[in-house]
Amino acid sequence: MIIRVLTLFPEMFKHTLGASILQRAREKGIIDIECINIRDYSDNKHKKVDDYPYGGGAGMVMTPQPIFDSHRVLMDSIDAKSKPKTIYMSPKGKTFNQSMAESLSKEDVLIFICGHYEGIDQRVIDNLVTHEISIGDYVLTGGEIPAMVVIDSVARLIPGVLSHTDSYQEESFYSSLLEYPHYTRPQSFRGMEVPDVLLSGNHSKIDEWRRKKSLEITLRNRPDLLKKADLTPEDKKAIIQLTNSL
Amino acid sequence: MIIRVLTLFPEMFKHTLGASILQRAREKGIIDIECINIRDYSDNKHKKVDDYPYGGGAGMVMTPQPIFDSHRVLMDSIDAKSKPKTIYMSPKGKTFNQSMAESLSKEDVLIFICGHYEGIDQRVIDNLVTHEISIGDYVLTGGEIPAMVVIDSVARLIPGVLSHTDSYQEESFYSSLLEYPHYTRPQSFRGMEVPDVLLSGNHSKIDEWRRKKSLEITLRNRPDLLKKADLTPEDKKAIIQLTNSL
Repeated sequence: MIIRVLTLFPEMFKHTLGASILQRAREKGIIDIECINIRDYSDNKHKKVDDYPYGGGAGMVMTPQPIFDSHRVLMDSIDAKSKPKTIYMSPKGKTFNQSMAESLSKEDVLIFICGHYEGIDQRVIDNLVTHEISIGDYVLTGGEIPAMVVIDSVARLIPGVLSHTDSYQEESFYSSLLEYPHYTRPQSFRGMEVPDVLLSGNHSKIDEWRRKKSLEITLRNRPDLLKKADLTPEDKKAIIQLTNSL
Repeated sequence: MIIRVLTLFPEMFKHTLGASILQRAREKGIIDIECINIRDYSDNKHKKVDDYPYGGGAGMVMTPQPIFDSHRVLMDSIDAKSKPKTIYMSPKGKTFNQSMAESLSKEDVLIFICGHYEGIDQRVIDNLVTHEISIGDYVLTGGEIPAMVVIDSVARLIPGVLSHTDSYQEESFYSSLLEYPHYTRPQSFRGMEVPDVLLSGNHSKIDEWRRKKSLEITLRNRPDLLKKADLTPEDKKAIIQLTNSL
């Protein structure tokens, strides 16, 4: 997969993309990722990239020219047959989720446009952008950290990127329940014990305990997920008990 | 505000936290932020920080000892009167949103614990963590990028961090509607024009156009938000028209 990031702050990606799984994916040649500074493409003699909004209002808006031109140069360098997708990270976008990550992980080329200030000129969105994506209902300073979120979640789904031991938390969002608690060594840590059932070796008891704990934490933190979950009659009984004890 | 990040990958934060608004907040002395490497606190002679989960299952779990000890050292260095909050970034947490960002922005000290691998030992969560937060319904490699999301959204709400020109996209989530499109110079860019109304100078017409565009983009990308929005009778009429034309 080819990933290109158009940004005013390419240095923000330097260490983030060098860490851990993404670094391995680059070393294995599975992902080819590069950041391009939008400012380098500004026609303006002061390399200006923003201006006041038409119609008034607070904040500056990123001008179309440097984005159109840097995007054009990128597109010209990429085989058109690979059908590049252009993603604009934006609070106005559709909310990112695991199934969007899966669908993006099947693409050959992803181009990210990271906005800053009040946003980018709408003509960029109307003419270049194929996906307008928000990572959640909160306000951030720019599109850079959101792009890292999408790149990380997409990259780990590309075959060969995760080694077996990297494991899968995916289950969480596949089964629509949050994951059960994890415990590791030591069994007794400063007077705090691992629950007996996990030491029992009785796998059906362990599964039962984990299922109940998943229901409990989902009920507490994300009751909205229970509506979508595939619940057994035992699950429903457990939920009633848990609700009464909360 | 004092922010401390407990992580296995402190270098990931190096450039991200140095960029733009956060850098200015540090220079102005409004935010004091530091990353601590959990691995430095491992008692293990190989500086091991993870182990197999009790009860079986894929993946490794971060052991309690290095997290408890690094957290302890941090707590001892902080005035207890500031009531530090400890946030664990986790797919099992409550979903982060703008009102959580606002409430966290009023705290004096935030400590972030970034998990990696399959997660951290539950005894850490039960004994040290005050807030378990998820940034959205997707799976990421670790808690580092999510911590950056929370830090960025919280930091920009602290008085003095945003300069006047940084503007506010906050409105988006306050009014429960997504923002209208922005346009800036030039008025005509390669045959693409700025909508006439924005050049009219007629502010009530501009407001009307923007409101309608907000409704349109919210209807298209986030119809769920319309249920919570404060809609006028004109808004409702516009929504019916828009729905029919989609």
